[in-house]
Amino acid sequence: MNEMIKKQLAHRTIREFKDERIPEEMFSLLMEAGRRTASSTGMQASSIIRVTDKELRREIALICNQEYVQRAPELLIFIVDLYRNKKIANEKQCFETSASDMDRFFSGFTDACIMAQNIVNAAESMELGSVYLGSVLNDSEKLCKLLKLPELTFPVVGLGIGYPNQNPQIKPKIDMELRVFENEYKIFDNYLKELKDYDEEMHTYYDLREANKRVDTFSDQVVTRMKNPNPKRARMLNNIEEQGFDLNVDGR
Amino acid sequence: MNEMIKKQLAHRTIREFKDERIPEEMFSLLMEAGRRTASSTGMQASSIIRVTDKELRREIALICNQEYVQRAPELLIFIVDLYRNKKIANEKQCFETSASDMDRFFSGFTDACIMAQNIVNAAESMELGSVYLGSVLNDSEKLCKLLKLPELTFPVVGLGIGYPNQNPQIKPKIDMELRVFENEYKIFDNYLKELKDYDEEMHTYYDLREANKRVDTFSDQVVTRMKNPNPKRARMLNNIEEQGFDLNVDGR
Repeated sequence: MNEMIKKQLAHRTIREFKDERIPEEMFSLLMEAGRRTASSTGMQASSIIRVTDKELRREIALICNQEYVQRAPELLIFIVDLYRNKKIANEKQCFETSASDMDRFFSGFTDACIMAQNIVNAAESMELGSVYLGSVLNDSEKLCKLLKLPELTFPVVGLGIGYPNQNPQIKPKIDMELRVFENEYKIFDNYLKELKDYDEEMHTYYDLREANKRVDTFSDQVVTRMKNPNPKRARMLNNIEEQGFDLNVDGR
Repeated sequence: MNEMIKKQLAHRTIREFKDERIPEEMFSLLMEAGRRTASSTGMQASSIIRVTDKELRREIALICNQEYVQRAPELLIFIVDLYRNKKIANEKQCFETSASDMDRFFSGFTDACIMAQNIVNAAESMELGSVYLGSVLNDSEKLCKLLKLPELTFPVVGLGIGYPNQNPQIKPKIDMELRVFENEYKIFDNYLKELKDYDEEMHTYYDLREANKRVDTFSDQVVTRMKNPNPKRARMLNNIEEQGFDLNVDGR
């Protein structure tokens, strides 16, 4: 097994970092890996905002409701970016409205995500750690304002990167048989039965965020999540529309 | 520079593969890397369909309008999967409807994308090549039927993997200054001016798909894309709704 695979199989989220800057040369390599990521039809419809301003970091940490966000040595926000390509087309006297369709949006969203993961892998190959911050979407409207995101851009996910200052356990994951299927989706008769071992394994896992407290079984975590939806995030498409995208949904 | 970063900076899409199976042990490592990928709030709301059936591959190649799709030694379709977690909650007597909200959908979409890229990185670390197939979404409705995707699942992206049987040039990418910004989105006065060198560089790049024909400049490619939207893909949200997700958009 090669070094990269070893690192991937030992992936942990790192939330506490050493108070040490990532050297600029190393940061440039991370960005270069990001820039070289595959992109839907070569359109490169994603961008990165590197957040260095202290006050801005504090505001983003408030959106995330995660205090440690502002302490990450590097904080990146990945965005869907169709603004750039629209302007390029406009400058070439092309004023088609298709820059704002949901096909472009999802292509840009995919571009942004795979760029983020490519940077995560580049970081881990250099012994850096990272934490994904889906929580930047808790208030996408506010984040758009904070980052001055123009029309046809939208935040996708955040990423904190730095030198790890903690050594968490590897988090147990759902069995492969429940996640990889052949030729068609496989429905199981009894998920709790299939998850029995995993639920037990998860119950013995110690999450460093919870100071040596046992975590819930996976199925209990699922129930807790289902019982606690985030109404603002559930309405996210309305904000995507406010950013200029044409949802193109029937019935209105 | 370590081996992983070197590989990332030399990333190319591989569309032609040797007629040689990936050993099952190696394939298992790819799936294991996928399974170990970070996941939004630990919910693991994504799954993979491994397509091995010949007729099914032919049908998917037709959707993609890319004949080589059916020849890839491995063909994977990554999906948003909230079906599993909904069933788990149901079996625990939790019948909340939040499994179908767009917050879960986008979390699952993100999970699926970053899992795909983690597998791409694992593949490249073992000298395999890959091709992303955004084109599986050309007819998401048909793909849902072909893969028997139940409610609360949706296709995200496809991936072909195998031993490379071509050696393409590295594709030029937009300059970093246009893709990574500090603290706020940076708007440029004249994109064509900023892109001048890149446009020239792209024009000297030879795309193997076009048999040694010069490709258009990037800005011309953008115009061509804008002038040729895909109306079916632009209406994708309606199919996402048909799969059981609650779009929660104002005005209807």
